[in-house]
Amino acid sequence: MKTSKTTSLPWNEALRALQQGRSPLVITHRSPDGDAVGSLLAMGLLLKALGRRPTLACQDPVPTRFHYLPHHQEVVSEVPEGSFDLVISLDCSDRERMGQVYDADRLASLPLLNIDHHVTNLNFGTVNLVVPTAASTTQIIYELVQRLSVPLDVPLATCLLTGLVTDTLAFRTANVTPQVMEIALRLIRAGASLYTIVQRGLVEQPLSALRLLAVGLSRMQVEGHLAWSEVRLADREATGYQGDSDAGLVGRLISAEEIRIAAVFKEVKDGRVEISMRAAPGYDVSGVALRLGGGGHPAAAGCTLNGSLEAAKARVLPLLRAALAEQEDGRHSEH
Amino acid sequence: MKTSKTTSLPWNEALRALQQGRSPLVITHRSPDGDAVGSLLAMGLLLKALGRRPTLACQDPVPTRFHYLPHHQEVVSEVPEGSFDLVISLDCSDRERMGQVYDADRLASLPLLNIDHHVTNLNFGTVNLVVPTAASTTQIIYELVQRLSVPLDVPLATCLLTGLVTDTLAFRTANVTPQVMEIALRLIRAGASLYTIVQRGLVEQPLSALRLLAVGLSRMQVEGHLAWSEVRLADREATGYQGDSDAGLVGRLISAEEIRIAAVFKEVKDGRVEISMRAAPGYDVSGVALRLGGGGHPAAAGCTLNGSLEAAKARVLPLLRAALAEQEDGRHSEH
Repeated sequence: MKTSKTTSLPWNEALRALQQGRSPLVITHRSPDGDAVGSLLAMGLLLKALGRRPTLACQDPVPTRFHYLPHHQEVVSEVPEGSFDLVISLDCSDRERMGQVYDADRLASLPLLNIDHHVTNLNFGTVNLVVPTAASTTQIIYELVQRLSVPLDVPLATCLLTGLVTDTLAFRTANVTPQVMEIALRLIRAGASLYTIVQRGLVEQPLSALRLLAVGLSRMQVEGHLAWSEVRLADREATGYQGDSDAGLVGRLISAEEIRIAAVFKEVKDGRVEISMRAAPGYDVSGVALRLGGGGHPAAAGCTLNGSLEAAKARVLPLLRAALAEQEDGRHSEH
Repeated sequence: MKTSKTTSLPWNEALRALQQGRSPLVITHRSPDGDAVGSLLAMGLLLKALGRRPTLACQDPVPTRFHYLPHHQEVVSEVPEGSFDLVISLDCSDRERMGQVYDADRLASLPLLNIDHHVTNLNFGTVNLVVPTAASTTQIIYELVQRLSVPLDVPLATCLLTGLVTDTLAFRTANVTPQVMEIALRLIRAGASLYTIVQRGLVEQPLSALRLLAVGLSRMQVEGHLAWSEVRLADREATGYQGDSDAGLVGRLISAEEIRIAAVFKEVKDGRVEISMRAAPGYDVSGVALRLGGGGHPAAAGCTLNGSLEAAKARVLPLLRAALAEQEDGRHSEH
């Protein structure tokens, strides 16, 4: 979001779309995380401040950990009847990430404002405000709030800081610039509770998640600078873990000094496997994820495959090994 | 460090001591953590900026994870010959925490400037600059740097931010005020690398630590809102973990939503057991730690006992159960 880079970004087109749309439908991605929910609710507050009556939609329910967020109960999973004149997609790298709430038959003819910070974004909107240098989608919305002179009250600051905190693991990622810290400070000064957001959005988890983490860590496999593990459906039953995350497992794997690339294979219902990948600084897993139909950032990406855990590992691990070898070669030849 | 509270703090006496001492001996606590090392090296830089030649001492070596800190190799574990005219104790809640480098026969007659942020500090100095509202001892040194108009360069900012980041788990603790965020921002703007400090000081750990964490999590015991686990000497051998921490185990236990008080019993050499305790907001483990000869903060405290793991559990768990029951009663009666 440095000035030199923002000049080519369609801020004005985005602002115009926001000001022109009378009945916007705002959609965030399925399996919403903190930035998805935070940006959805922040955009809702922004649009209300502009005098609009937005509809906020997400295919999946807002996770209970984010129920401290104001107006979370206004998010719908079925888009009601009514005529919209603008669709706003938030934190979605492609159209498919919007899930079932994006009914193309009904909505494809409308202007689509695509606001996102994923470098893998496919620019599928009419206006594409895609800012890969932003640490979160809420950071982009913060900029819109500033440009529209919308007052920064406690609810809005709380939604915005939630995205910033959860996507940076509370300022731990490499993309935390002084500007990110300054925005965080302004949001805290506006009344957002950093501690609540960190605890509810990031730290707190049920005991069952710790039990799942213990199982996942005990299954860790290491091969040179690559580590992986798996979470089976049976593990969820055994530990009683109800959530759909990996309980922080992949984050632990990449935190190891020896590891450059890490992956967790998570068995989910309907015979699918979700794969989360992480890369240490200087390494990139977004290419592998994109090639497998997923997306993400260089340091954190993912995809979903049909088939068994074993089939998923057989398909993904060779790609990760190759990416690691190639990137290590690249780093050596630089020196 | 709010103005209303600082008026009673001996800032002027501390500044006078710093300006008068020609040959200061600066000591931080044994088993140094990031705030111990950060405040030691920051004080060294501050004193050099004042034209002094400080001796920086710590009983135990600076952990390799902090070897990114400038001048870490200047820290000595044996105090050299020579005459000192001031002792500065950093981040030590009592005289004993300074360990063997504080030779009372030689040093007890000298003025002792005690700079610390632990609420359990025993005020054992000639001047006691004890600021429990500070998130780290480096936050107090930052204030001294400001009052002495010492220029904030990259090495100094790096040392100061290291203490702030490690003691707040990178802004995750309840004592992270807007002022803490503002100081962090200033230190980052002065050139400290937040990412390096977070990664090296907090996140990175060897694979063997993940293996130790897996063992510790698998041994978790839960009793109502109390959780505990243990790390045996044999676990270190089995996992190959060389460090002396609990690999983040107690932090994971207290992160569970159901848990109000958590403890980890760590078997160390010479027949002793180190106990780390953690409390959720509104709960306090510093009283139990203090009663057992240890110290710390309400949310994080610890002590060391002689004897076996079983003996330590038999002694500590009833105290934790009682503290929890009492504090839960207190909370209920408030409502």
